[in-house]
Amino acid sequence: MNTPLLLNCDIGESFGAWTMGCDVEVMPYIDCANIACGFHASDPATMRKTVALALASDVRIGAHPAYPDLVGFGRRSMSCSPQEIEDLLLYQIGALEGICRAQGGRVQYVKPHGALYNDMMRDPKLLRAVVKAVAAYGGELRLMLMATRDNASALALADEFDVPLWFEAFADRAYDPTGHLVSRSLPGAVHRDSETVVGQALALARGESLVTSDGSLLQLQVDTLCVHGDNAGSIAAVKRIRQALKEPQTV
Amino acid sequence: MNTPLLLNCDIGESFGAWTMGCDVEVMPYIDCANIACGFHASDPATMRKTVALALASDVRIGAHPAYPDLVGFGRRSMSCSPQEIEDLLLYQIGALEGICRAQGGRVQYVKPHGALYNDMMRDPKLLRAVVKAVAAYGGELRLMLMATRDNASALALADEFDVPLWFEAFADRAYDPTGHLVSRSLPGAVHRDSETVVGQALALARGESLVTSDGSLLQLQVDTLCVHGDNAGSIAAVKRIRQALKEPQTV
Amino acid sequence: MNTPLLLNCDIGESFGAWTMGCDVEVMPYIDCANIACGFHASDPATMRKTVALALASDVRIGAHPAYPDLVGFGRRSMSCSPQEIEDLLLYQIGALEGICRAQGGRVQYVKPHGALYNDMMRDPKLLRAVVKAVAAYGGELRLMLMATRDNASALALADEFDVPLWFEAFADRAYDPTGHLVSRSLPGAVHRDSETVVGQALALARGESLVTSDGSLLQLQVDTLCVHGDNAGSIAAVKRIRQALKEPQTV
Amino acid sequence: MNTPLLLNCDIGESFGAWTMGCDVEVMPYIDCANIACGFHASDPATMRKTVALALASDVRIGAHPAYPDLVGFGRRSMSCSPQEIEDLLLYQIGALEGICRAQGGRVQYVKPHGALYNDMMRDPKLLRAVVKAVAAYGGELRLMLMATRDNASALALADEFDVPLWFEAFADRAYDPTGHLVSRSLPGAVHRDSETVVGQALALARGESLVTSDGSLLQLQVDTLCVHGDNAGSIAAVKRIRQALKEPQTV
Repeated sequence: MNTPLLLNCDIGESFGAWTMGCDVEVMPYIDCANIACGFHASDPATMRKTVALALASDVRIGAHPAYPDLVGFGRRSMSCSPQEIEDLLLYQIGALEGICRAQGGRVQYVKPHGALYNDMMRDPKLLRAVVKAVAAYGGELRLMLMATRDNASALALADEFDVPLWFEAFADRAYDPTGHLVSRSLPGAVHRDSETVVGQALALARGESLVTSDGSLLQLQVDTLCVHGDNAGSIAAVKRIRQALKEPQTV
Repeated sequence: MNTPLLLNCDIGESFGAWTMGCDVEVMPYIDCANIACGFHASDPATMRKTVALALASDVRIGAHPAYPDLVGFGRRSMSCSPQEIEDLLLYQIGALEGICRAQGGRVQYVKPHGALYNDMMRDPKLLRAVVKAVAAYGGELRLMLMATRDNASALALADEFDVPLWFEAFADRAYDPTGHLVSRSLPGAVHRDSETVVGQALALARGESLVTSDGSLLQLQVDTLCVHGDNAGSIAAVKRIRQALKEPQTV
Repeated sequence: MNTPLLLNCDIGESFGAWTMGCDVEVMPYIDCANIACGFHASDPATMRKTVALALASDVRIGAHPAYPDLVGFGRRSMSCSPQEIEDLLLYQIGALEGICRAQGGRVQYVKPHGALYNDMMRDPKLLRAVVKAVAAYGGELRLMLMATRDNASALALADEFDVPLWFEAFADRAYDPTGHLVSRSLPGAVHRDSETVVGQALALARGESLVTSDGSLLQLQVDTLCVHGDNAGSIAAVKRIRQALKEPQTV
Repeated sequence: MNTPLLLNCDIGESFGAWTMGCDVEVMPYIDCANIACGFHASDPATMRKTVALALASDVRIGAHPAYPDLVGFGRRSMSCSPQEIEDLLLYQIGALEGICRAQGGRVQYVKPHGALYNDMMRDPKLLRAVVKAVAAYGGELRLMLMATRDNASALALADEFDVPLWFEAFADRAYDPTGHLVSRSLPGAVHRDSETVVGQALALARGESLVTSDGSLLQLQVDTLCVHGDNAGSIAAVKRIRQALKEPQTV
């Protein structure tokens, strides 16, 4: 295990008077904070507080841009054109950077949120728009996206635009033989057992294959692991994963 | 007339499917484009097109941030705290800069819009918040604000935060003896005669006193003149002012 | 031609400071005003003015609800669930009715807007949600939807919920052999010639077949014709259609 | 104590993915639910669920309209004109009624929210706009507003428009000698002791005078008491008040 696996977490998803997530509790245990930029969640004040939290824990700041759909939390696919995707990415990345600059921070990567993330993984034209926007923003921004059975096409696209990538995987979700997540509507899609979650995290960290839903093996090239800070249970899981990654040989 | 008077104009105030203003027509005649940032008008796509227009005419790009009030076009005062003002300024400046970066441009100054502009000129706590946000953003941003009879307190505040200022005046509005604009509800508030407008522009450019509504003289220190690109009439006025400023001795 | 063909028009699509359409000019020539309800266009003040216009011309008031997408003008499909569709319809119909009541009017029918209209015509689950919402609102609301080659399934659904329907057709668009509009991306999709437009309006009014894009005939059962009030040209067309419908025998 | 004091509570203030308040827990103990209408909180789906909850507990449904300020939760004053207030009230009341109709309910009263409530109590022009909108909506809607030392001017206004009023008071807040609430920034503004809260509720129910912050007596004519469902503590208080009001002689 040469490069340690980074832990990334969606964060800063409160909005106005409404609170969501346990940002204070989870921040110390993660490496990369995917910070909402006001389109699916958050607002300028929440962004300021979230950036302050991340800087205090020396956590990398990522923009977590989304479709413009507050009431749907960015989870509803919208038929946006590639140009619209580019525009809304640049707007949101810039807005977060504006908040960061006032605190001496900077945006280091981009991870699209929710339906935009799913749509970009499904539609090469949208992924291209995302990569193009990240490249156009400049500043050595990285793009975080989902590791698949074959990362080659994403890597080729990133090369074309000279955008470095971080591939992410999930420790708490089952994969199917094609390398996609098992749909949440199917049994066994989410690992409830913490031993299984930590085990999958370690396997990914060591570069070992995962066992998919049909028993076949899946080898993923992964840079970062997506963790959750929604509640006490998920934070306990993050702590266990963090501890296990520190001492991988002992598990 | 040592430093030439810059012409600034509110621009990029279309929104989605709705068009406003004659941006294409007015852009070639101005020096500074106050570009809406999505809170009172505009959206990421409109901002992209507006930035492209400004860059094509080599016009300085300014952020034109506002209260979050699309339906009211940012013209309704909102009781925001100084902290809220700082946050929403940084968000909007950054968002515009994100769009600019993709085209090789950058935000060079900030001019608050509408009710936020008026409130900042009335309430020193809000002006302080604005200056603080501009300073916190960094990047040698300037603040554009209204010239008053006595610019000293604004200059002192700007010095404290090391923010350069541009003071603006109006060629098409009558001033009262206190150095404020005559309310639009009063007769004679707006100069309809183009000779008067161009005359006032030239007087401001030459550093001459203006005659106020009660006949007294008003001396303003001015860096920039606010012009309008709403319709054919205002664009004709901009062209005449531009021409007059080029050849001030001939008028 | 027993029942005269009603002319319906999308109207009240201004928003805040932005104006769209020639509502004052077109209102006297139409029978049914599809009034925007604030989700893709309009706002409470615009709705008040639009309702007043409609009442002054004795025009039937229809709710024109949409996806919650102001910046996209409701033209972008959003993956809303049937329950979400029902909820947003009831909200928007009620909001318009609130404005109507203050002026002694009432909402008489519903015509979904833009992407919601297209999605409902494509997806029976969404059409069912729309019909269900219209029925649940009560008050003898009608639903306006697109006439197709075979209206039977829509009629069966409407019967199930006891919702009366108005089928609409277009005089300025070419139809394909399947009874759908020819895509705007194809040549000949929009009739530019006013003789053709008026001729198609009259054919529909007389219950005659249309000639489709491949020369085959298409028989549509139609109650209403969609006209446009965007600009001087479309208003001239509405006047000609109105005149022709008044004296169909003379044309 | 002839007419029993009604308990009213702000409710349905979740928004999209964000939850606020303990609506399920508090609903059985209140008489009047002030339901958010989407401008400061809530959305069509949340409104549907909230209306269902209210109907299940046989609780009167009130519209709780607000300034259009989701991010500020309607707590920031906005300089809206009386006409704008009328428009936004009618829109929001109607929207809630649309949701109600589908479930067989109806809006019975209106209580403005947050800054709009405060502004209306301070500015007779705005109160007049509110009363006018409630009257224009019709349907025997009542208006809920704050009881003051002298309700006469509010009653005269309500008579002019034939709008019945419900005056509300607070059991958990101290009053000053002028009959207003002691500002939250001052010590003793909020009663923390549950005995005091229940005692003040009973005094109001019995028509007894309250002791104000300077020891003087204050006699309020009150129809309803505002209670809170934010958390376990406030719900416990509601239950105690409900119990005390049922058996006032025993306390």
